[in-house]
Amino acid sequence: MASLRTATAEASPNIALIKYWGDVDHALRLPANGSISMTLGGLSTVTRVTFDPTIDRDSLLLGGEPAGPAALERVARHLDVLRAHAGLDGHARVESTNNFPSGAGVASSASAFAALTLAALTAAGIAESSESLSRLARRGSGSACRSIMGGFAEWRAGTGDADSFATQLAPGEHWALVDLVAVISAAPKAIGSTEGHRLAATSPLQAARVADAPRRLSQCREAILRRDFDALAEVVELDSLMMHAVMMTSTPPLLYWMPTTVEILQAVASWRRGGLGVCATIDAGPNVHCLCEPGAAPAVEGALASVPGVERVLACPPGGPARVLHPAS
Amino acid sequence: MASLRTATAEASPNIALIKYWGDVDHALRLPANGSISMTLGGLSTVTRVTFDPTIDRDSLLLGGEPAGPAALERVARHLDVLRAHAGLDGHARVESTNNFPSGAGVASSASAFAALTLAALTAAGIAESSESLSRLARRGSGSACRSIMGGFAEWRAGTGDADSFATQLAPGEHWALVDLVAVISAAPKAIGSTEGHRLAATSPLQAARVADAPRRLSQCREAILRRDFDALAEVVELDSLMMHAVMMTSTPPLLYWMPTTVEILQAVASWRRGGLGVCATIDAGPNVHCLCEPGAAPAVEGALASVPGVERVLACPPGGPARVLHPAS
Repeated sequence: MASLRTATAEASPNIALIKYWGDVDHALRLPANGSISMTLGGLSTVTRVTFDPTIDRDSLLLGGEPAGPAALERVARHLDVLRAHAGLDGHARVESTNNFPSGAGVASSASAFAALTLAALTAAGIAESSESLSRLARRGSGSACRSIMGGFAEWRAGTGDADSFATQLAPGEHWALVDLVAVISAAPKAIGSTEGHRLAATSPLQAARVADAPRRLSQCREAILRRDFDALAEVVELDSLMMHAVMMTSTPPLLYWMPTTVEILQAVASWRRGGLGVCATIDAGPNVHCLCEPGAAPAVEGALASVPGVERVLACPPGGPARVLHPAS
Repeated sequence: MASLRTATAEASPNIALIKYWGDVDHALRLPANGSISMTLGGLSTVTRVTFDPTIDRDSLLLGGEPAGPAALERVARHLDVLRAHAGLDGHARVESTNNFPSGAGVASSASAFAALTLAALTAAGIAESSESLSRLARRGSGSACRSIMGGFAEWRAGTGDADSFATQLAPGEHWALVDLVAVISAAPKAIGSTEGHRLAATSPLQAARVADAPRRLSQCREAILRRDFDALAEVVELDSLMMHAVMMTSTPPLLYWMPTTVEILQAVASWRRGGLGVCATIDAGPNVHCLCEPGAAPAVEGALASVPGVERVLACPPGGPARVLHPAS
C-alpha cells in the first residue's frame, strides 16, 4: 500500500452568470467567449485518484458503480493530459461521488473535472498554482476551469492553451448571493454540453452572441464588484436567453426547456415586477437557477417550491475553491 | 342613402413562414427583412366602410361594439393615408367583425387592415392593382400587405414605400398545406406587434437575424415552389425560433411563450422524429401553428387536441385573397 500514490479532492459545480457556449478549439476546449460564474456551496464532487503500478488500464467508479465506457474514456483522456503534465506513467483508479443529481442542468462535469485534476496532480506529488490547475481542468471540461476557484470566477477566453483559464473575481464573502436551483427533472439531458458546444457554430446567431460578449462580461463584472443586484439581474437574464437563443437555432436545434422552465421564467419576471429582487438563468438543461440576495431568498424559495412541476429547490450560497481532502481532516 | 359611398371587404389572416420582425422605418412600416406567409382559409375579417358627409369624425365598431380610443386612432390614421391616396375628404363609419379571437397569435391586424384598405378604396370608387393594395395595406399593419394575396405570399422588403409590398408566390391550389393552430390562450397579448417591432433593434441578435434572412427566404421560397415539406419544416422552425430569440433578448425582453407552448414544441419534435410530417411556428403570442400536409392533418389535430392546456385547434387550409363582398352575393 505504501507504494500507491493516492489523493482525494473536492470541488463544487458553478452556475455561469455569463455563459460559455461554443469553442474555437474543441480538442483544447478554448472557448468562443469568456465567462463568469459563481461556485455553488453545498454541492460537491469528491474524487479519489490512486495511481497503481499493478493495473494495466484506468478504472472509474461513479457513486460506487463502474462507469460506462464513454465516461471512462473521457476520464482516461484527461488523465493522459495530467500524466503528460506530471511526467508520470501508470494507470489510475478513480472513485468519484456527487452529492447532487448529474446531467440535469447542474454542471456535474465542472466539479468532476476540477476535483479529478486536483486529486490526480496531488496524488502525483505535484503542487500547482490555482491558475495552472484551472488551465488543466479546462482540458477535461471547459467550465471545470471555473470550479477550481471559490466565490466568483472569470474565465478569460485567452488566445491558446497557455492563457485560457479562470481567476477569482471576488471571494464568496464579497457578496452573499443565493442560487435557488429549481430542479424540474433529474433525468439526464438528451444532448450533453460537449456535443452542444460543437453545434453552437451552426446557429446563425452565435457570432453575434460572441461579438457582444465583452459588453456583457464587463457589465456582469462591474455588477458583482459593486454588488449591484439590478444590474446583475439584467445582464444575467439577457446572457442566459442569448445562449438559449443560439441553442434553439442550432442545427439540430437544442431546446432544453420544459413547460415548467417557462412557467418559472414567467413567474420570476412577475415577482421582479412586484418588487422581489430575483433573476433567472438556465444552463444546458431544464432547471432554472434563481439568484437573489439573502433577504429575498425565503420568499423566492417558497414561491418556487409551490410551482407545479418543481421537484425540489436547492439553496446554494457561494462555494469555496477546489480543495484536497486529507484523511485526518 | 344614395349619397353614401359604402363597400364591404373580406380578408383572411396569414401565418408567416419567414417572419417579419423589426422595421427600418416605423412610420412607413418598412421592414428590416422580407417575409413569406400562407393566407389562412376559414378565418376572416369582414369590414364595411361608409364615407358619410354628415359626420365630423371617423367611427369604428369592432364586433358590433364601439372600439377603444387606441384602435379608433389607428384606423383613423390609416383612413387618412387612404383618403390622401384617393383624393377624398370626409369621414367614415367603419364596422369590422372577426370570426376568430383577436390578439392571441393569429394576426388579426393583418386581416383587419387588408379588409379596411380594400373596403375604403372600393367605397371611394377606386380600383387598385393587388400590388398597390398591398402597398397601402402595409401602412396600416405590416403583415396586412401579405393578407391582400391568397395562397402563398412574399413581401419583398424593398427600399422605400414604393417598392415594399407583397406578391403572390403561389396560389393556394399549388399546395394543400394545413395550418393547425393550437390555441392556448385567447387572452390579448401583453405587448402588441407594433410595439414589439420597435424593440427588435434592442436585441444584440437582430442584426444577425436580418443578415441571414435572404438565405432563409430563398430556402422557404424554393421549398414552397417544389412542395418539399422537409425543407420547409426545417427553415420554418429555424426562422420562428430566430424571431423568438430576438424577442426574448430585447430590452425589455418579450417572452410570448407559455408552458403549453413549449409542451407543443417538444411534442412536435417528437412526432417528427416518429415520422409524422409536421412543423411548428409561433407568431407574437403563445399559440403554436402546426403545419402539415393533408395526409398527416387528422393525426396531428387529434394529438394537439389532447395536449393539456390546448383550448381548441383551428384547421386552416390556404385562404383566398382579400375580396369585395357585394350585397347580392
